[in-house]
Amino acid sequence: MANDSFLPLSGREMPRFGGIKTFFRLPYIKQDDPKFKELDVALFGLPFDGGVSYRPGARFAPSKVRELSSLGRGYHMSRKESVFNNINVSDIGDCSVVPLSVEKTYALIEDHVSKLLNKNKRFLSVGGDHSTTLGHLRAVKKKLGKPVSLIHFDAHLDTYPAAWGCEYHHGAFVRHAINEQLVDPESSIQIGIRGPLAGQADLKINLEHKLKYTTVDDVRKTPGGVLDFCKDLPEFLDKPAFLSFDIDCLDPSYAPGTGTPVPGGLTTYEVQKILQSLNIKNLIGADLVEICPPYDPTEITALAGVDICFEILCLFKKCLD
Amino acid sequence: MANDSFLPLSGREMPRFGGIKTFFRLPYIKQDDPKFKELDVALFGLPFDGGVSYRPGARFAPSKVRELSSLGRGYHMSRKESVFNNINVSDIGDCSVVPLSVEKTYALIEDHVSKLLNKNKRFLSVGGDHSTTLGHLRAVKKKLGKPVSLIHFDAHLDTYPAAWGCEYHHGAFVRHAINEQLVDPESSIQIGIRGPLAGQADLKINLEHKLKYTTVDDVRKTPGGVLDFCKDLPEFLDKPAFLSFDIDCLDPSYAPGTGTPVPGGLTTYEVQKILQSLNIKNLIGADLVEICPPYDPTEITALAGVDICFEILCLFKKCLD
Amino acid sequence: MANDSFLPLSGREMPRFGGIKTFFRLPYIKQDDPKFKELDVALFGLPFDGGVSYRPGARFAPSKVRELSSLGRGYHMSRKESVFNNINVSDIGDCSVVPLSVEKTYALIEDHVSKLLNKNKRFLSVGGDHSTTLGHLRAVKKKLGKPVSLIHFDAHLDTYPAAWGCEYHHGAFVRHAINEQLVDPESSIQIGIRGPLAGQADLKINLEHKLKYTTVDDVRKTPGGVLDFCKDLPEFLDKPAFLSFDIDCLDPSYAPGTGTPVPGGLTTYEVQKILQSLNIKNLIGADLVEICPPYDPTEITALAGVDICFEILCLFKKCLD
Amino acid sequence: MANDSFLPLSGREMPRFGGIKTFFRLPYIKQDDPKFKELDVALFGLPFDGGVSYRPGARFAPSKVRELSSLGRGYHMSRKESVFNNINVSDIGDCSVVPLSVEKTYALIEDHVSKLLNKNKRFLSVGGDHSTTLGHLRAVKKKLGKPVSLIHFDAHLDTYPAAWGCEYHHGAFVRHAINEQLVDPESSIQIGIRGPLAGQADLKINLEHKLKYTTVDDVRKTPGGVLDFCKDLPEFLDKPAFLSFDIDCLDPSYAPGTGTPVPGGLTTYEVQKILQSLNIKNLIGADLVEICPPYDPTEITALAGVDICFEILCLFKKCLD
Amino acid sequence: MANDSFLPLSGREMPRFGGIKTFFRLPYIKQDDPKFKELDVALFGLPFDGGVSYRPGARFAPSKVRELSSLGRGYHMSRKESVFNNINVSDIGDCSVVPLSVEKTYALIEDHVSKLLNKNKRFLSVGGDHSTTLGHLRAVKKKLGKPVSLIHFDAHLDTYPAAWGCEYHHGAFVRHAINEQLVDPESSIQIGIRGPLAGQADLKINLEHKLKYTTVDDVRKTPGGVLDFCKDLPEFLDKPAFLSFDIDCLDPSYAPGTGTPVPGGLTTYEVQKILQSLNIKNLIGADLVEICPPYDPTEITALAGVDICFEILCLFKKCLD
Amino acid sequence: MANDSFLPLSGREMPRFGGIKTFFRLPYIKQDDPKFKELDVALFGLPFDGGVSYRPGARFAPSKVRELSSLGRGYHMSRKESVFNNINVSDIGDCSVVPLSVEKTYALIEDHVSKLLNKNKRFLSVGGDHSTTLGHLRAVKKKLGKPVSLIHFDAHLDTYPAAWGCEYHHGAFVRHAINEQLVDPESSIQIGIRGPLAGQADLKINLEHKLKYTTVDDVRKTPGGVLDFCKDLPEFLDKPAFLSFDIDCLDPSYAPGTGTPVPGGLTTYEVQKILQSLNIKNLIGADLVEICPPYDPTEITALAGVDICFEILCLFKKCLD
Repeated sequence: MANDSFLPLSGREMPRFGGIKTFFRLPYIKQDDPKFKELDVALFGLPFDGGVSYRPGARFAPSKVRELSSLGRGYHMSRKESVFNNINVSDIGDCSVVPLSVEKTYALIEDHVSKLLNKNKRFLSVGGDHSTTLGHLRAVKKKLGKPVSLIHFDAHLDTYPAAWGCEYHHGAFVRHAINEQLVDPESSIQIGIRGPLAGQADLKINLEHKLKYTTVDDVRKTPGGVLDFCKDLPEFLDKPAFLSFDIDCLDPSYAPGTGTPVPGGLTTYEVQKILQSLNIKNLIGADLVEICPPYDPTEITALAGVDICFEILCLFKKCLD
Repeated sequence: MANDSFLPLSGREMPRFGGIKTFFRLPYIKQDDPKFKELDVALFGLPFDGGVSYRPGARFAPSKVRELSSLGRGYHMSRKESVFNNINVSDIGDCSVVPLSVEKTYALIEDHVSKLLNKNKRFLSVGGDHSTTLGHLRAVKKKLGKPVSLIHFDAHLDTYPAAWGCEYHHGAFVRHAINEQLVDPESSIQIGIRGPLAGQADLKINLEHKLKYTTVDDVRKTPGGVLDFCKDLPEFLDKPAFLSFDIDCLDPSYAPGTGTPVPGGLTTYEVQKILQSLNIKNLIGADLVEICPPYDPTEITALAGVDICFEILCLFKKCLD
Repeated sequence: MANDSFLPLSGREMPRFGGIKTFFRLPYIKQDDPKFKELDVALFGLPFDGGVSYRPGARFAPSKVRELSSLGRGYHMSRKESVFNNINVSDIGDCSVVPLSVEKTYALIEDHVSKLLNKNKRFLSVGGDHSTTLGHLRAVKKKLGKPVSLIHFDAHLDTYPAAWGCEYHHGAFVRHAINEQLVDPESSIQIGIRGPLAGQADLKINLEHKLKYTTVDDVRKTPGGVLDFCKDLPEFLDKPAFLSFDIDCLDPSYAPGTGTPVPGGLTTYEVQKILQSLNIKNLIGADLVEICPPYDPTEITALAGVDICFEILCLFKKCLD
Repeated sequence: MANDSFLPLSGREMPRFGGIKTFFRLPYIKQDDPKFKELDVALFGLPFDGGVSYRPGARFAPSKVRELSSLGRGYHMSRKESVFNNINVSDIGDCSVVPLSVEKTYALIEDHVSKLLNKNKRFLSVGGDHSTTLGHLRAVKKKLGKPVSLIHFDAHLDTYPAAWGCEYHHGAFVRHAINEQLVDPESSIQIGIRGPLAGQADLKINLEHKLKYTTVDDVRKTPGGVLDFCKDLPEFLDKPAFLSFDIDCLDPSYAPGTGTPVPGGLTTYEVQKILQSLNIKNLIGADLVEICPPYDPTEITALAGVDICFEILCLFKKCLD
Repeated sequence: MANDSFLPLSGREMPRFGGIKTFFRLPYIKQDDPKFKELDVALFGLPFDGGVSYRPGARFAPSKVRELSSLGRGYHMSRKESVFNNINVSDIGDCSVVPLSVEKTYALIEDHVSKLLNKNKRFLSVGGDHSTTLGHLRAVKKKLGKPVSLIHFDAHLDTYPAAWGCEYHHGAFVRHAINEQLVDPESSIQIGIRGPLAGQADLKINLEHKLKYTTVDDVRKTPGGVLDFCKDLPEFLDKPAFLSFDIDCLDPSYAPGTGTPVPGGLTTYEVQKILQSLNIKNLIGADLVEICPPYDPTEITALAGVDICFEILCLFKKCLD
Repeated sequence: MANDSFLPLSGREMPRFGGIKTFFRLPYIKQDDPKFKELDVALFGLPFDGGVSYRPGARFAPSKVRELSSLGRGYHMSRKESVFNNINVSDIGDCSVVPLSVEKTYALIEDHVSKLLNKNKRFLSVGGDHSTTLGHLRAVKKKLGKPVSLIHFDAHLDTYPAAWGCEYHHGAFVRHAINEQLVDPESSIQIGIRGPLAGQADLKINLEHKLKYTTVDDVRKTPGGVLDFCKDLPEFLDKPAFLSFDIDCLDPSYAPGTGTPVPGGLTTYEVQKILQSLNIKNLIGADLVEICPPYDPTEITALAGVDICFEILCLFKKCLD
């Protein structure tokens, strides 16, 4: 049962377009606040896009997702359960970053997340570009001492090599995570992959490390569609898991505001069903990345992001039941 | 057979981007025009958004829908029939409103619609926010003396309680319509509902009054999808019916320009099929609400609205055959 | 000398695109916070647009101005002085409103501002539409027991009569303020007025009550332009003053995002010079209104608004020196 | 004194965002309407952009200017006079066009305007691209039998040669008007010209025909600025005059939504002052061209256009006094 | 095996946002370049929209598609093959046009394409509006001496009659192509058709000439959906084929930026599957038309267009294997 | 006299909306092209924004300025001279960059510019963010062996300290240029400066090094305005000069699309006059920076940038006369 201190500001008390914007209108609780102890899941922003190769702008995603989350409510009709009444979630502000340096930002992320993990908090980070996930995974590895299972929604494999002499960028985090043994590829999965690729060689790391990737074709060619596709998904019961959601796994019609959109993607509904079907025993952390507000004039990308956050919070709740 | 006075202005006579904008380029016929007598269905605008709780702007919907309806044509390929050649439809202008008062606007709507009903006209109102539907239903009740069946497309249940001490707002019309016995909940249906809700209690009114709601899951989980879902829909043969279409029953990718968008909605195609499958003996009136042009930079929401209007006009034609 | 608790969050600590958005990145201090006592000027949002007659959307202005104010800094080059180091300013959140009722909102504003005045705080309210100013002025009158001088920047006179049976709307606050004896018209001034008007009769209230209005022609036809125009402005030394700034006094090229824009307006520079030239002994409160974010795709209107806020804070500082 | 039948629809009767859109909410009066006889000035749309060389879209200008003119009112503060109460103006709809052919459109324009002139109506045409002006001038010449004085606001000289084998395009109307002796160059003037040009030879026609052009430098380098520049303008007392206003004479900051914008242009205020200073005895017709709504997301270009229309209507009133 | 001279500029050499924009970052090779001889498929732009009946702007499509194609890569995940490594493709610039004349533009297109065909090049033209396809087909007929099979993706039948006395416009190319015997209707197909039509008579040409059209209903009502629909498509093995892809066959949610959008269209995924299933022995040429950048603020229409180009290039590769 | 090979593609040969986009439709000439030898001024893009502290996006400026420069022509009406006919200018493509590293990009810029200088080419670089100017200045210093005079248009001083441990960012290039003795502060000037600043200390470097800054007040408070302000500007006759133009010296109404806009800036006309008045004997290089296309929906910022480029090319011509 959630503590009253962790309930979203009611739309009756202040209309949803009013007030200082926090995620889901949750209270802003700093780490030195006594209430922080009672927190189950820390929601924070990660305003960084220094790792992108095409369109920048994801640095504004935390702010925009906060704004759009004003419309959020707590009871999930398909799951038939309430989130905010059952687990203690709050907005703890943004993780600081160095906009000009991926490496310095990694250090700040790792430090930020390590503090949370050491206080036994689960977390949902709203990025930011996909390079940042490596910082999360390093902190998780440091805490757990062993690799996690990665549940990775994306249009891209993110196993690409260094570019322009830069090892760390938004298309390489999976490669590094495997090389640094932060994730266990064999119990991990990628969802929403579709190409085009630079070449067949792009699949090499997946094959070598037995990292399973599933494509949009895999979802659509399953007779019965996404509902049956979900039945074939692995369960995540043995190892702690990290969920990384790149908004570009959605089709550009559902998520135009992203850095490197790819036509032919999943629908919001498909992604909802997949997230609702996941069986994760211990979701230690998650992130939502690559929402790029300057390219989102209709705000539907950020709005889809809010919905993904809601589904992820439900996954945390399930672990905490 | 339609009177020539009720045919849309041809694109040959004036290109579709030219001319003063009326719905479907239909003639603008005032109530004191002698031709008004021959009218079957009165199309009018209802430029009101004083009942919204989040994004205003629906007051500009009648104007924008008029503009986009310039592309409309009269022959429906799936239904294999023409509308404007078969029934007399015209644009009768806008219903006047008081932008600062829901209550005063209700009185104006009720008066406006009552006049139409007393002249035995059916009507399609292009709103405006969803609070306005109550005005329509009150006029309909006054005319018929008994409740109608409500066919309600929406993401939301619209049974919410008073807010900030205001009984009447765009999320409460169904509650009032039931309480004022304007609609018969047991022969009514809601389509496209999805949540999130504030809590499970939001479903109480539906349960108490046996008002059936169907969700996006209901559409998608039916084996065979929307085509089979349609087969299970009730028929509306006994009581007169009112159809209220909130554009937010569509997914934000299809209808970004609305006041309170909800991810995971229906597609335009699904909605077309549902509207094409409806069997309504006596459709007395209908409205299309919650198109919000300031949030519709690509104009696809208004364009979808035009298509919904076209389907609804086909439903009227069916009643008049 | 300002207390450290009232300094904006440094861009070095958190880049300007990061963090939860408050006005000028100032601390968010609630009224029950012990630091509230040390506050000189309370900055708050007033997210209301229920009084507009054309484009709604100003309800989103507080949120958007907070976002754009991230670029703000504290040292004014023309005035050669720092604000935040010299007076204690903070963001105290938003005043609650009832989006569907001007009257209920007036009560909430009056209560909110009265509390501030009773604690001897000066205030700057970021609205919201121009109907809200009446709420401020009522609270000010209640506190002072006598009318204030009004310094009113606007394209419009705002002395218009009731509309659609509604006394209170965004074009009528000056009329009510005079009638309720909240302002002293003879020591007040209107700046930026330009028309078109409905008719010459619109000027009647000004003439009757000796409320001076100055037009864009007055600024531009002064030989030497705005710099000399400023020399002719009255001083506000005898009575406490309230400054109300409607962003539409600016030309639409400088402030496109407003509810009722009027071509031929002032430039930002002219407004800066006028504000810098004002000699106000006791500025008791101020507001900035009619920024309408849905019509501000380039965000320059909100940005101009941030600059106006900065100038107004400098005016407060001058009173407090 | 204007007939009541020619007054704009009051904002009290129908809020300004409501109703079917006509210019200035004036009544729509067709040529076969008995009231047409009483008309002084016919306002019509000319939705054609088949003559452009860069950005098309001006075909949507009549519709967009109608929409924005909802904010218009009738009393001019600088001129201290009312328009709609003093002359009979109405919206007579759009002139039909052939979107794929300049020549066929010219024939339609000439026919349309000739009918008006033969009924002794003055006219203001809202275009459309600048090629269309030739159609107006041909009709005027046919009616008058002699050339008119041209008062031409533009960034461009519009004396350019045929392009791609096409004689008629939006940069050539002045050349044709001179060659066809539709205008008298020596009593004509061009205002707002600025370049860049293709070469010095572009000025040849002006020199040969003694067509005076004045540049932005001419306005700004006059000591005393635009107010003194106005004093040096010629008067138009001998010959009937036609006024052609290309919105691109304004700077792109004031009029971004145009087909071929040129930096360094006039301000709206300067243009207002010039229009207010014009002394025209017999303004037979006028047009406003090159507003391009698809490039006008803030709608300030169309809004400036509304203001220009208002000034031009005041010029007509002056002729009719 | 492709020549190195025909490989796209690598993102490693120049980041994808940098450099002068060509289609897919391919080399720009003029017809007089010695490397032109080795070319397999010529990609060119056709910046013409003089044939449209509603929204113009497609003239900017070649430029916008070039920009968005920067994100393109060469390996197709579903087809499991690389394009640019296997066939020689390059950007040969734009075909010149006369913006004010459909007929003159047809002559330029016919000449441009004839030169390519006479050098035995296949081609993919990026338009432009759909009137232009007739120019391509005329050149193809001249080269082959016999009609081709047409594979036509569109929401519209494009068999409409002359308009405003103009035979050639963007809704009439199929009618002309049949009448001029440029295509063989019986071995041709139309995909994505949906209406509304002006009337049932619009289908007359299809019936008379046995030109098969398939609708969105045909795709969706096939049990098994698009995957099974593909199985029923004809093969194109006997005659050379031309593929014409109008982006408006996609639903407006996937392709908002088009001249005459129609709700209820295909998804990008469906179109990908259909294109992947086509069995064409000799694809002689293809075009992509009706992308309208001024109406594409999210750029997803152009991006979908890039994907279609990629699929079409794969079809060319298949012919060349 | 310019070589024919260096003339812009005529709008008669290819309409201005057609063709592959180069700056001013000039020929694209690579450094290994024999014609490169004849070049006077090399125009190139510098697509880098890795040094920004607020809004990224300037990486897309070269591409967008190329697009908008299609409207450019060669004859300057105020200067009464032609550029492209008199000096040999061409687009040499983009300088390569490393999007994730300011330092690596500096090395690439320095190398790129050094090659040009060693071939005795003058250059105009279209950036990119303002951090890049340091790369240019380093190359210039290496070539000349002594500091240049800097003519610096900007809202900001760009003498700010390191941020987040990063020495090099877009607000620090002037500080580094002085420290590295790349520029001679005493013969340099800053134009358009306005604040707000972090504090008075921001002016320290200017004072210490006698680097003159002039503000918007300096321009506007000069009796006679900008025309007289120009008369007081220093001449640049002794030392070679570098001109660096940050688009944010313009007011946001003229240049909304920039990374850190500041209200109260210069007008395009003022900047034109200042640039026209500059007397520079040896302009060795120049850059235009901080145009940020994702924030420029009306494209007027890029268009203003094109005009600045044109003025700068005229300054080069003057040196070459």
